[in-house]
Amino acid sequence: MLENIRIVLVKPRGSGNIGSVARAMKNMGLRDLAIVGSGRTKSFLAKAMAVHARDLLNRARRFDTLGEAVADCGLVVGTTCRGGLYRSHSRSLRSIASKTVAAARGNSRSVALVFGPENHGLSNQDLKHCQWLVTIPTHPDYTSLNVAQAVMVCLYELFLATQKKIPREKIERASAESVDRLFEKMKRSLIKIGFLDSQNPDHILLALRRILGRGGLEDKDVRILTGLFQQVEWYGTGGCKVIEEKRNKGLKIR
Amino acid sequence: MLENIRIVLVKPRGSGNIGSVARAMKNMGLRDLAIVGSGRTKSFLAKAMAVHARDLLNRARRFDTLGEAVADCGLVVGTTCRGGLYRSHSRSLRSIASKTVAAARGNSRSVALVFGPENHGLSNQDLKHCQWLVTIPTHPDYTSLNVAQAVMVCLYELFLATQKKIPREKIERASAESVDRLFEKMKRSLIKIGFLDSQNPDHILLALRRILGRGGLEDKDVRILTGLFQQVEWYGTGGCKVIEEKRNKGLKIR
Repeated sequence: MLENIRIVLVKPRGSGNIGSVARAMKNMGLRDLAIVGSGRTKSFLAKAMAVHARDLLNRARRFDTLGEAVADCGLVVGTTCRGGLYRSHSRSLRSIASKTVAAARGNSRSVALVFGPENHGLSNQDLKHCQWLVTIPTHPDYTSLNVAQAVMVCLYELFLATQKKIPREKIERASAESVDRLFEKMKRSLIKIGFLDSQNPDHILLALRRILGRGGLEDKDVRILTGLFQQVEWYGTGGCKVIEEKRNKGLKIR
Repeated sequence: MLENIRIVLVKPRGSGNIGSVARAMKNMGLRDLAIVGSGRTKSFLAKAMAVHARDLLNRARRFDTLGEAVADCGLVVGTTCRGGLYRSHSRSLRSIASKTVAAARGNSRSVALVFGPENHGLSNQDLKHCQWLVTIPTHPDYTSLNVAQAVMVCLYELFLATQKKIPREKIERASAESVDRLFEKMKRSLIKIGFLDSQNPDHILLALRRILGRGGLEDKDVRILTGLFQQVEWYGTGGCKVIEEKRNKGLKIR
């Protein structure tokens, strides 16, 4: 039921936590564990905490970057316990659970749930890859959950959401990788025309990612937007003169 | 908000788990940790897993029996992942969360949430002390959660329930200890009159506990029922003859 959901651990430090995550996954019917960095899945502690979920540890895949770990995913959901500039749009787990399950059901591409390192969680750089951001509500005195606990709570909430009648999502999401390429194109083109500051393009770009990520993008949307920003880039690198000339001569522009 | 809820760990084996439980408790605003048996709260692993919740470990109380750990509680909720004869009335966590919070809010006595040992969970003997029983829904392939994970999920669900408008429970529950005494009296008296089999009284007695535990008992209810079974016991140890004689002589019985 949740087989189409991938758990991605970014640079996990404790191998016991990796084992606990594997167990939580199997408790809730998941199988796809991805690890960014060198987290140890074969340690004694990892196996001890996994108990009957060692098969998930053996099957876990390793990636050098978060981008690679989620490249083929249709939806990437990040987790955070912090507020802050790039995190203010985070939503509560319960409010997002049904939508996440709908996306996992309606798409052939996987949904990734991403968890940061134990010591400081996902970085702003990591957040770039996440279309949605969730927080687990906690008491204000101690907001940081153990990573395996956070995984468990998320999966529990998603598992319960699978038991409801949730309509499949209506769109077939483009892969994270192709969306990433779109944003790279967008960035280059918007720097060209002076909309983005070349020294600090990410601030606005993250807002654009958020806006476009909210509803999701299909392959054809990505193609349309890529074409649009292709044109912007062309216009920004000499195209403006071509058009100006055409206009001056009274020619048709397209 | 959840300060009136006590977490009771029955004979926990892994001290890392105890630390993880402490952290989960602090994440959700609880403080009252009780340990039945010799679980180590001062080990390196316990402290490491507790991180910023070591104060809860230091404050944890130790008891020899589950009965003592919950003696002053108004409601005792057990957890199980198993089905079976004495567990068929278990309810899902979500369905019970609001009621549990209502009981914690409406009572001066604490509510206890009880978790069994890692290897086999709560015994049928332990269940005697529990008025309600909850299960966390899981995938059928692996139904047994790590104990700290189970605590986390329960507290998450209760924490969210605190955020809703939940009316306080209408009754002021009697202490588990006085309810226990009632059931002891009930047992003796019902054996006397041959309603319970003295070799195996617990089967029916558990059903009676479940029936009376469902809605909860106030102090005055306990007094009334104690009086009733006092009378049954008296009747079963000679009282029947007294009454028979009175009846034969045409005297008033009371």
